Amino acid sequence: MRTRLAPQLGDTAATVWTLGTDAPFPGPADLLVLPYMIPAAELGRLNGLPVALVQSQTLGYDGVAEHLPAGITYCNALEVHESSTAELALALTLAALRGIPAAVRDAAEGRWAHRRRPGLAGKRVVLVGVGGVGAEISRRLEPFGVELVRVARTARADVHGIDELPALLPDADVAIVAVPLTAETRHLVDARLLAALPDGALLVNVSRGEIVDTDALLGELTRGRIVAALDVTDPEPLPPGHPLWTAPGVLITPHLGGDTDAMDARIDRVVLEQLRRLRAGEPPLNLVFDADRADA
Amino acid sequence: MRTRLAPQLGDTAATVWTLGTDAPFPGPADLLVLPYMIPAAELGRLNGLPVALVQSQTLGYDGVAEHLPAGITYCNALEVHESSTAELALALTLAALRGIPAAVRDAAEGRWAHRRRPGLAGKRVVLVGVGGVGAEISRRLEPFGVELVRVARTARADVHGIDELPALLPDADVAIVAVPLTAETRHLVDARLLAALPDGALLVNVSRGEIVDTDALLGELTRGRIVAALDVTDPEPLPPGHPLWTAPGVLITPHLGGDTDAMDARIDRVVLEQLRRLRAGEPPLNLVFDADRADA
Repeated sequence: MRTRLAPQLGDTAATVWTLGTDAPFPGPADLLVLPYMIPAAELGRLNGLPVALVQSQTLGYDGVAEHLPAGITYCNALEVHESSTAELALALTLAALRGIPAAVRDAAEGRWAHRRRPGLAGKRVVLVGVGGVGAEISRRLEPFGVELVRVARTARADVHGIDELPALLPDADVAIVAVPLTAETRHLVDARLLAALPDGALLVNVSRGEIVDTDALLGELTRGRIVAALDVTDPEPLPPGHPLWTAPGVLITPHLGGDTDAMDARIDRVVLEQLRRLRAGEPPLNLVFDADRADA
Repeated sequence: MRTRLAPQLGDTAATVWTLGTDAPFPGPADLLVLPYMIPAAELGRLNGLPVALVQSQTLGYDGVAEHLPAGITYCNALEVHESSTAELALALTLAALRGIPAAVRDAAEGRWAHRRRPGLAGKRVVLVGVGGVGAEISRRLEPFGVELVRVARTARADVHGIDELPALLPDADVAIVAVPLTAETRHLVDARLLAALPDGALLVNVSRGEIVDTDALLGELTRGRIVAALDVTDPEPLPPGHPLWTAPGVLITPHLGGDTDAMDARIDRVVLEQLRRLRAGEPPLNLVFDADRADA
């Protein structure tokens, strides 16, 4: 990123430093850009270092509050990953419904096996999450002619509350999870909600693995009751030999959501805007945790 | 279909008869509904049979003119498959770009292999075909933020002519083929057009396999020059052992385009409307070849 940004950095002094090595920290930093998808626990390594503001390259910040040292401001990467993650939600939904995983396995054996598959048109899609990613998923679903049921933490016009899920899911053909991981959403999709899905329903998760109770999901998959397309898992990365790899009716991608070639230009824009604000003495962009926060 | 339609057939006498068996033809037919995806050559078996109108369950009618006996009217299935085929075009495009085939193969070995993939956002997509399927693909691509270049047989406002393809393809990230197979479009995507695609481009074909020169495509795939996602192949079905199965960078689905659970209701609607018109003495719906056509 430093090399990429160099022409636009002007007289900003920028250095690459690798978190967790013995390399000495290169002087006080007004801004530290974290590596992409670093575990939140790694933030503890910044304890005692002269860092004013940490810029994350991810949208979700689950675990950050617990590990971010006091006195450091934390900003997330808004408008960097939403469209790529929504793209993947559509890719997973369409691929799972239209039988692409089966076609890939059949092709490996040179087998042309035409079978009728469900389509997306006319299906009832329950979308849990109406934030940045949820909104981008909604826009992309619109021309597919689905019946879209939007669900958020609290009900509002045209949006159901999360407490209505047990009543909504029995009529869902597809349920897409796109909410941030918080104490409230951990295991939101538990045995009870999974049981509420009708036979043959498709569960899509593009947010965080821990939002779904893996054991409960494994039970439903193993019984062939529902199918699932997951870009995120719990645990993650999913270790070799984990039963989710071989469960029937599951499509797993390795947390590809936000990571496309569209990301570089977007994260660069965030970093440059952050630098501009620092110089101008303006409040930072995408502030999540302030250095002076109460819980620090 | 007869069982499904029974409650709506009123006093219409409907019989199931299997083309190509020794079973006697059950009396003169005002309307004969063909099986889905029957090879056009099978139409020759209707020669001399008392059939007034043949209703196909497919959209494309390549080969029909050569095999349809004189004196029989032929109608295709318009507004039955377009949305399902467009859905699959999006499914193939997104799956190929975002690495779903690789994820399926990795999952079979329990391997979590995160790699950055290209996204669809911001890409230049050349869409060849602006008919029913092409229009439905356009609508679905719109919210993905692509730069869409539409191409049809003849240029018009906002649509390039097919003769411009050699100039357009060098800037294409994705080329989607959605034109009917005709004498003009057979091997439209030949060695010259494939060579015009830039390195790493994705070719998507959801219309008919013969529109692409398979040998030329195999050459480009084998060199790792481009990638492809094909719902249709030439030959089709692709036989076991065909080199296309094992070519690098290819995703093959077994002609799933129009065949979803959305199809039944739509073909039923066409058949019922056809019956209504026959009774009312109105001209048939979706007329392709008239019984009195010049070439019969």
